[in-house]
Amino acid sequence: MSKIRIYEVGPRDGLQNEKAFIPTEHKIELIESLLSANLDQVEITSFVNPRWIPPLADAEQIAKHFENHPQLDRLTALVPNLMGLSRATQMKEIAVFMSSSPTHNLRNINKNHHDTFEAFKPVFETCAQKGIRVRAYLSTVWGCPYEGRIDPKITRQLAQTLLDMGAYEISLGDTIGVGDPKQTREILSVLLESIPAQKIAMHMHDTWGRALANCVIGLEMGITTFDSSIGGLGGCPYAPGASGNLATEDLVAMLIAMGYETQVDWQKLIHAGFKAQQLLGKQLLSRALQAELAKKELLTIS
Amino acid sequence: MSKIRIYEVGPRDGLQNEKAFIPTEHKIELIESLLSANLDQVEITSFVNPRWIPPLADAEQIAKHFENHPQLDRLTALVPNLMGLSRATQMKEIAVFMSSSPTHNLRNINKNHHDTFEAFKPVFETCAQKGIRVRAYLSTVWGCPYEGRIDPKITRQLAQTLLDMGAYEISLGDTIGVGDPKQTREILSVLLESIPAQKIAMHMHDTWGRALANCVIGLEMGITTFDSSIGGLGGCPYAPGASGNLATEDLVAMLIAMGYETQVDWQKLIHAGFKAQQLLGKQLLSRALQAELAKKELLTIS
Repeated sequence: MSKIRIYEVGPRDGLQNEKAFIPTEHKIELIESLLSANLDQVEITSFVNPRWIPPLADAEQIAKHFENHPQLDRLTALVPNLMGLSRATQMKEIAVFMSSSPTHNLRNINKNHHDTFEAFKPVFETCAQKGIRVRAYLSTVWGCPYEGRIDPKITRQLAQTLLDMGAYEISLGDTIGVGDPKQTREILSVLLESIPAQKIAMHMHDTWGRALANCVIGLEMGITTFDSSIGGLGGCPYAPGASGNLATEDLVAMLIAMGYETQVDWQKLIHAGFKAQQLLGKQLLSRALQAELAKKELLTIS
Repeated sequence: MSKIRIYEVGPRDGLQNEKAFIPTEHKIELIESLLSANLDQVEITSFVNPRWIPPLADAEQIAKHFENHPQLDRLTALVPNLMGLSRATQMKEIAVFMSSSPTHNLRNINKNHHDTFEAFKPVFETCAQKGIRVRAYLSTVWGCPYEGRIDPKITRQLAQTLLDMGAYEISLGDTIGVGDPKQTREILSVLLESIPAQKIAMHMHDTWGRALANCVIGLEMGITTFDSSIGGLGGCPYAPGASGNLATEDLVAMLIAMGYETQVDWQKLIHAGFKAQQLLGKQLLSRALQAELAKKELLTIS
């Protein structure tokens, strides 16, 4: 079986949905503990306009802190456009994002698909010149709060365009967590007709508790990169109070149980989850984190 | 696709792990709301010695309340032995239980496998005479807190013996929630060599977040009955603080999404989950319940 790559999105996708601003030094501490757990890639912040996402307004300070870090290569930041890229001067990898759903794309980034690609062009060109890797997110692949289910052929076409532009990987997102295993098989079948599994990552949300069940289908179909968030950090902007990202601990625990190889250090990962709980001052939703902490008889935060 | 049968265990397996004694009238209210949601079968209490399980010490009162209920046929109670059966006079269905793991069986019910069957004999005989259906639970099938993994051939042999004695169905339990999809496929393959899928139910715990992922394998392999607990009620006695039973809402939401037929009324199920939260005065762990309540903008209990 292939080695599985874990792409940690907690410090960005997780924290951007937290109401309280987490102090910069706490974010740095969390990122350090995630690196120490040996996660393959860690998305540390977003260079979206801070007025849109106030919890990540300290993007420059975060990136600056890791400027000379020995593991800088394993860090990523979200970048919406050329303006964002001009602020992300330290990064060796960035990620751009758009939605498979035309309506969600319009509402989320105020552009249609065509204009989104136009705005991405100079970003990809600059990155190519500077040797910066580009990852691309496609969100609402399993369902859109405005349009419902999205035809996987639309997703395949957008993914192909992003790969042609220079993205090294497309992360398919179940933004509102509505995906089910049957649908996952259908979507991946369409994508894998023309795109190699090694170019596709799965970014599942656990809103309805089905993130892991969907990942199992991905594993069966040859996907080897999965996004997840420490502790399950991050909610659903369309359903406040509901669960957010798939928890890294739940994903890694399942991979270990199934005999898949990862490079993650399990005990250090649990330490990072425990730290995230402490920094946020609340019990996180990861089942595996709570099971490990219960085993260790560590008091949970209530 | 076959119609899927949901076997609700919240009032028994869920509440037996709650520290606080839930007042009898609240338990009755919960059971009524579960019946109203049209769950196929509801396990209402346990006739185990009340000294062992004080939260269910009101078993007689609960059963007495439903004595002339029009849906009495859809209620079950746990019965450990002939003494328990003599207290369960109203029931049309009972459930006996033992562990696949010899050590867990010894520690949990103080008998080896042979003596357990000996104690079950008069229970099965009395039930046969009185026309009472008998379900049988096999616990620790995916793993035991003392012995680790259990050879599925042991489980198959015990299951066959219980069927030969007269059980209409064997519910295979992942008591500590350690099962993974690969293992589930292995275990079911061994069982299904000689036992029809219609005789097997899956009773998964969500301690590590993998209950649904395991159920998907069961569905693929022809299993049509799944146990679950409203709201995910019930913890893990071996990991206090960790998640317990698979939540009925999470299971039913996934079945609906995948196009499986059930007889459950979704809105009434969410009502039952909301009621369970109110009666217990705490937020329950079901992802789907929280997502639905968030959609309805019902304040969550914190």
